[in-house]
Amino acid sequence: MFLTAAPEYHLGMLHLHSTSPERWLSQVDQNLNVILIDHAHCEQKAASTAMHLMFEYVENEELRDEMTEIIAEELEHFHMVLALLKQRNIRFYKLKPGTYGRKLMELCRRQEPHKAIDRLLIAALFEARSCERFVLLRDHLQDSQLSDFYGSLYESEARHHATYVRLAQSYGSVDAVNCRLEGLAAAEATVVADGCELPRVHS
Amino acid sequence: MFLTAAPEYHLGMLHLHSTSPERWLSQVDQNLNVILIDHAHCEQKAASTAMHLMFEYVENEELRDEMTEIIAEELEHFHMVLALLKQRNIRFYKLKPGTYGRKLMELCRRQEPHKAIDRLLIAALFEARSCERFVLLRDHLQDSQLSDFYGSLYESEARHHATYVRLAQSYGSVDAVNCRLEGLAAAEATVVADGCELPRVHS
Repeated sequence: MFLTAAPEYHLGMLHLHSTSPERWLSQVDQNLNVILIDHAHCEQKAASTAMHLMFEYVENEELRDEMTEIIAEELEHFHMVLALLKQRNIRFYKLKPGTYGRKLMELCRRQEPHKAIDRLLIAALFEARSCERFVLLRDHLQDSQLSDFYGSLYESEARHHATYVRLAQSYGSVDAVNCRLEGLAAAEATVVADGCELPRVHS
Repeated sequence: MFLTAAPEYHLGMLHLHSTSPERWLSQVDQNLNVILIDHAHCEQKAASTAMHLMFEYVENEELRDEMTEIIAEELEHFHMVLALLKQRNIRFYKLKPGTYGRKLMELCRRQEPHKAIDRLLIAALFEARSCERFVLLRDHLQDSQLSDFYGSLYESEARHHATYVRLAQSYGSVDAVNCRLEGLAAAEATVVADGCELPRVHS
């Protein structure tokens, strides 16, 4: 059973091949605090990924400027999530990562410029899935503070998604990049369908 | 032959046990473009170190906030150096690192909380040595744009130095941290005296 996408965006805009399964919202309901802690980890990883990409592809001026903005934004979100945890007396601790990130990174080709394209497109899909799920959280969560919080965050994820896809086009033709994006998005949908026992933002 | 510290600061404030040898300014004169490129690398590494420390010691609120500011500042400096390189038609490329960073990191103890103290104090010494050398560059370089540039940067390095030393005191008594700082600073002075054949900001 898959959830219906919210009207603010369509899956095509995010290049996702599936909506999240209902199973994920059950994981959320049963492990809300863990999901919030994992959300802080996600913002960390997003900032760290943007910094790695910036330093790896430093000759790309547009990428450099976009990554600088994304780093600042992700760190701001990271602090917002930590403030939320503090307010709720939820201790932040290091979680074992779910399988989503590893499974996607296994698809990354090793040779440049394919590697650059794949790293950027995988980052784009991370952002897309976060966006889709933040909208689900906004609509699903009864807690109005959390619902508002996720309602305030999903747009930046969609924007980052579009930025990463555009940047990937610095390293290949639009057709080649779009074709690869479709391939990776199909694989991403399989990873989501397979799921992960650990309750995570991307499980 | 060692250089005399500029009047704006004294070595004690930076906890350095030596001024830079004249040999370093000869390296600068003979390889100015490489030093500028390495400066961009230094800002990268400084931002990246601050991010790693933040995510490693995320439960420390003061550290988190300070690291967030330092990341933003180092990235701003990184962009400033890249703009300077561009203006001078100097292509940025990846340099083989000098030996300074590796030699200092070899001194880092492995067990917490010693590891935290050492990582923070080594970061503090990096900033201190940069500060000392930026003042030397300000006073030595004939090129007024570069001289002004380094004159505008050294204060933030001194500030970061003080921040890292203060943060190290979250993980040990003031006495224990100061004692370790003196030991690491003595080792740092030896690393600087030994030098590095590659012309670098910290060679």
